[in-house]
Amino acid sequence: MAVHLVLLAGGRGTRFWPLSRRRRPKQLLPLLDARTLLRRTWERVAPLGRPERAWVVTAGDLARACRRELPELPAARVIGEPEGRNTAPALALAGALALAEDPRAVLAVFPSDHHVADEPAFRRLVRRALRCAREEGALVTLGVTPDRAETGYGYIETEGRAAGGEPLPVRRFVEKPGAARARRFLADGRHLWNSGTFFFTARALAEAFLTHAPDLWEAVAPAAAAFPGPRFARRLREAYRALPAASFDVAIMEKAARVRVLPADVGWSDIGHWISLGALLPERAGNRAHGELVAVDAADNVVVDTEGLTALVGVRDLVVVRAGGALLVCHRRRAQALRDLVAALAAAGREDYL
Amino acid sequence: MAVHLVLLAGGRGTRFWPLSRRRRPKQLLPLLDARTLLRRTWERVAPLGRPERAWVVTAGDLARACRRELPELPAARVIGEPEGRNTAPALALAGALALAEDPRAVLAVFPSDHHVADEPAFRRLVRRALRCAREEGALVTLGVTPDRAETGYGYIETEGRAAGGEPLPVRRFVEKPGAARARRFLADGRHLWNSGTFFFTARALAEAFLTHAPDLWEAVAPAAAAFPGPRFARRLREAYRALPAASFDVAIMEKAARVRVLPADVGWSDIGHWISLGALLPERAGNRAHGELVAVDAADNVVVDTEGLTALVGVRDLVVVRAGGALLVCHRRRAQALRDLVAALAAAGREDYL
Repeated sequence: MAVHLVLLAGGRGTRFWPLSRRRRPKQLLPLLDARTLLRRTWERVAPLGRPERAWVVTAGDLARACRRELPELPAARVIGEPEGRNTAPALALAGALALAEDPRAVLAVFPSDHHVADEPAFRRLVRRALRCAREEGALVTLGVTPDRAETGYGYIETEGRAAGGEPLPVRRFVEKPGAARARRFLADGRHLWNSGTFFFTARALAEAFLTHAPDLWEAVAPAAAAFPGPRFARRLREAYRALPAASFDVAIMEKAARVRVLPADVGWSDIGHWISLGALLPERAGNRAHGELVAVDAADNVVVDTEGLTALVGVRDLVVVRAGGALLVCHRRRAQALRDLVAALAAAGREDYL
Repeated sequence: MAVHLVLLAGGRGTRFWPLSRRRRPKQLLPLLDARTLLRRTWERVAPLGRPERAWVVTAGDLARACRRELPELPAARVIGEPEGRNTAPALALAGALALAEDPRAVLAVFPSDHHVADEPAFRRLVRRALRCAREEGALVTLGVTPDRAETGYGYIETEGRAAGGEPLPVRRFVEKPGAARARRFLADGRHLWNSGTFFFTARALAEAFLTHAPDLWEAVAPAAAAFPGPRFARRLREAYRALPAASFDVAIMEKAARVRVLPADVGWSDIGHWISLGALLPERAGNRAHGELVAVDAADNVVVDTEGLTALVGVRDLVVVRAGGALLVCHRRRAQALRDLVAALAAAGREDYL
């Protein structure tokens, strides 16, 4: 039962503007060190499988950049989706590809733009999750043990409380809660953050799709059967033309039987916006900074400037980012709302900055 | 009685960092349009005299840049001081040079880094001031009619209230006042802002120096006598070696007899810092900006960015400037205190940004 590592690398997002652009989204940015988040993700999970069996599912126009980041992988296994359709089609495609190659394949699926502080512990948990997927035929996910009443994440409610590092049955998936609800979730010990990682045999995945979203599976299966032949690309385009957008959580995980969540306390962050990135950057005189910073009576700011020196005087709670000719100065409580700004740029016809 | 226009262009200052640098201070910056403030000053006053009789007194290492800005002037008449010694030595030098050239010269002295909105009205006032200087042998200055209780300027208290556009006797010069005192000055109608402009005959100036600061005059006279010969530069170096630093206001204007001030209401600004510059910049959606700006819920900011696009989200009362590889984000109430920042840069050995 060979492990097929699957990296989901199709995200776009606007929350790291101006560093991120359409053609260079978050997973392709070196946000934490000299490596892109995609490269860091690959190096984190590489010990768990072999590159010849790995898959990357990304957007068509990002495939070349992903291949450059992951030269270990055979180029054909970096699949460019003709159009973004959220995670359910991407996972159906990966599952069908793996199943066509090896009926006994087991998949380990990872977002390519998250951070994990304790990588050895993370890999131990992944191995535990894979064992559960193999032995029980379950759909398994890692659920991050919350350390704060976060309202920016989805939650997974478990049956019973976490104990002994065993996978737990899932009662339900919960969308981003309000503040009061998030505080109850944190207190009750039964709620975990949805990490977007998945572990299952290709067979169990196929069964789940055929039960809960058969159209999706049947749409991508002909393309998968043609891989890596000359008809693959055309069949993939045909398949995606009619595919609805759907999240894998909603289409499959919330409905399937035998769903398990393994509590994970590994220093995880989805690096969702500049503020959460800031928490991972080096501290400089009370600020968090990547690049050269001089601060006079300035604290609690996040600065990312790889183009020169930033000087802050008498300011607090700002996000300051300089990249690619553009400069962002944003209050920290607005860091999750850069979509408005990017929309304003688009409305102003500033394609050169998108 | 030929007019000798004198531009004082030796200022350094740190208040326009990062746009201003040691070798490119405020008067050499195009802060308001494509022209430097020095160039704007020259074009404002050029109708009042002839370039062959004009003088520029600046710092030795800025002389070449000043000559580039003012190609109309004979190069030798842009004098580079060996060291900065404030305004009194600069004016003694200009006066001695003019007197040596023409015993009947009359001088019109201007800072080279100020703004005047109504230039024709300004020139009418300068002509009136020059007439007073010629006819009465007075030392004349323009005093700006205040429109707010500004604490950042020096004031001139007149004898009697301004009326009829006539020069008034001066009771005293007042250093920058506190807020309450500034409000009284504004209310009493007898206080004008010190504009740093001066008008006098070379003879009256020589007399005033010889009465109140004879050492200064006697120090620079041998250099002036050698102008424009081969010994001028060496004599100037010798003269400045022993010269004390002194402001012309303190050394002469506060002490001399026959000092007159002509009230001026011409839209004057000394452009003392980023906030006062902001008041002269175009308005963009509630902000003042030079360069490309996109603002989302952002107002009352001053942005100067000639290197790309600046985006502001959810911020107020900031100064944001990008120039020469450096980026400044400063609260508006700290815009007058950039000296601390520049000192911090110097302490950190960042000569590349000074």
